[in-house]
Amino acid sequence: MKERGIAVWEKYVRKVTPYVPGEQPENNNILKLNTNENPYPPSSYVKKAMEEISDEQLRLYPDPRAGLLVKAIANHYGLKEEQIFPGVGSDDVLAMCFLTFFQSEKPIFFPDITYSFYEVWANLYRIPYEKKPLGEKFQIYPKDYFGENGGIIFPNPNAPTGIFLPLKEVEEIVEKNKDVIVIIDEAYIDFGGQTALPLVEKYDNLLVVHTFSKSRAMAGARIGFAMGDPKLIHYLNDVKFSFNSYTLGISSLIAGAKAMEDNGYFFKTTEKIKNTREWTKRELKKLGFSFPDSMGNFVFASHEKYRAEDIFIHLKENNIYVRHFQQPKVDNYLRITIGTKDQMEKLMDCLDQFIR
Amino acid sequence: MKERGIAVWEKYVRKVTPYVPGEQPENNNILKLNTNENPYPPSSYVKKAMEEISDEQLRLYPDPRAGLLVKAIANHYGLKEEQIFPGVGSDDVLAMCFLTFFQSEKPIFFPDITYSFYEVWANLYRIPYEKKPLGEKFQIYPKDYFGENGGIIFPNPNAPTGIFLPLKEVEEIVEKNKDVIVIIDEAYIDFGGQTALPLVEKYDNLLVVHTFSKSRAMAGARIGFAMGDPKLIHYLNDVKFSFNSYTLGISSLIAGAKAMEDNGYFFKTTEKIKNTREWTKRELKKLGFSFPDSMGNFVFASHEKYRAEDIFIHLKENNIYVRHFQQPKVDNYLRITIGTKDQMEKLMDCLDQFIR
Repeated sequence: MKERGIAVWEKYVRKVTPYVPGEQPENNNILKLNTNENPYPPSSYVKKAMEEISDEQLRLYPDPRAGLLVKAIANHYGLKEEQIFPGVGSDDVLAMCFLTFFQSEKPIFFPDITYSFYEVWANLYRIPYEKKPLGEKFQIYPKDYFGENGGIIFPNPNAPTGIFLPLKEVEEIVEKNKDVIVIIDEAYIDFGGQTALPLVEKYDNLLVVHTFSKSRAMAGARIGFAMGDPKLIHYLNDVKFSFNSYTLGISSLIAGAKAMEDNGYFFKTTEKIKNTREWTKRELKKLGFSFPDSMGNFVFASHEKYRAEDIFIHLKENNIYVRHFQQPKVDNYLRITIGTKDQMEKLMDCLDQFIR
Repeated sequence: MKERGIAVWEKYVRKVTPYVPGEQPENNNILKLNTNENPYPPSSYVKKAMEEISDEQLRLYPDPRAGLLVKAIANHYGLKEEQIFPGVGSDDVLAMCFLTFFQSEKPIFFPDITYSFYEVWANLYRIPYEKKPLGEKFQIYPKDYFGENGGIIFPNPNAPTGIFLPLKEVEEIVEKNKDVIVIIDEAYIDFGGQTALPLVEKYDNLLVVHTFSKSRAMAGARIGFAMGDPKLIHYLNDVKFSFNSYTLGISSLIAGAKAMEDNGYFFKTTEKIKNTREWTKRELKKLGFSFPDSMGNFVFASHEKYRAEDIFIHLKENNIYVRHFQQPKVDNYLRITIGTKDQMEKLMDCLDQFIR
């Protein structure tokens, strides 16, 4: 049946405006500084683990609780297994959190400039929300989050600014919101910030979410996890087991567990990225850029004379991809992922060429 | 804050009763006939593909559209890429379908005895539903699905009965329900049924869902997909991209695409399973079992004299796991996955021992 040329079933479709991820170009000659991937390979344990996966393991359903991975994460952070909820990247974990915990009639709060997926999830699940404007220097004001709300989420460090909110202020937000769930999205925490993880023992309304996609260089394996009170993890598992019993495939489960053991490599590569970030900041400053003091594996930079979009186009023409958000307040900024030192030198040459 | 000892945030939690998957025992000595896995290994292409995955591929986000896999599926079925929606197993795909298409105030319809996840998804998303009782011999009556509804879903062959509904009757259901989306869950279609795939060109309200977990022996890799009108696939992608940009990890994406090319092996192993199923039926009959004429990789059997639960316990004590659903109408049945011929002989010996 059609009504005015439109199928009737169209009426019952959940219409949404999806999140648009950064480009994943197929051309290998591109210097990809647009999706905050790690420039270093994953731990050598990962490829080895993948090679050892047997036909038997591929044939069978994986452990629906991803026990091996959960155990490795728990060991690493000194937590109990009941405090860990794993998923298909932190996006899967966060989507489950929205669906599980943000069921109030009151709006959830998040910053106006932040990971843009929060708004998309809220819209998907028809969750009311209120965006709290950042300050002039992109700072989060904790007191903005003290009013009545249905839950709180923000990244720390914030994306795409890279600004880290001191733990004391994070705790203040958690403290003042004991009646709702507060989610700290720590995708970038391993690059210099201080994790809110110690607070999960103190507050049963706090979830801290991490990912393997950035500091562990495993974006291709799709692994993320939430840490919190066993009661919260239990509710998350109930929803997860009402959605898909087996979310993590055998290769992610095994490779993820192995990666978690290679602390030395993890430390070495994150340190390198931090050093390169600080070098990048100095060089960008010399070229006339300004930026918040990022604690992530990226810098969010604006130039005093040139439009971000023009710089973006120039870089793209030279096969260097960075991220430009066409969005009020930030459309004159570029989010530049920290690559290797060599890659950043290449970027600086290209910027220098444009600016001179 | 606590009210009567319960944290206030508890009020805003989505409370659900999750699906309970079949056991995944860690003991390797168990003959596992409880979750309809394939007894044969996946195509040799799969392990080879997994071994070739590079550090570079692991480090980067995978193609969010899973283009390689989508292309391989489209080629295999002679469809266009815009007609394919891939996901993390068919459970992920079906969950997305429920969220995307079942938004009516009217109840969706599915059989009372069927894949029990349908009810779980309906509850998760607060979708009204009406279960249509199967006939005395577990048959689906197409006319039960002709009344006003908000959408229809059923497996063909049905689970856990294995009964295949002839394509003519499937089409009748699709035909009479042009105002809603009809989903045919064909997880077991490759073991002898006739796919409704040709109908997707004719009806824009039809989705046909397949999985790599059964006939392709890749339950560990978590791959499923829906096929249908490009408009339906577009809506599914919008919701998927509002949930998680990158659902399929690089190893599933690459290994899945490769598996799709190995037609000869696929044909050989599905034929073997079909032959073993028919042998199993003859042997079960000799032992006094009766069962619907399954077209899946399992048989749903009941004994004339012995209680299913007692047989279940006896088998378990002998390290043979089958599935027993403690649920009205079917609690005197066992769902037995078809293994290799050797495995089924072992099962028969164990049953014989009990019955004599």
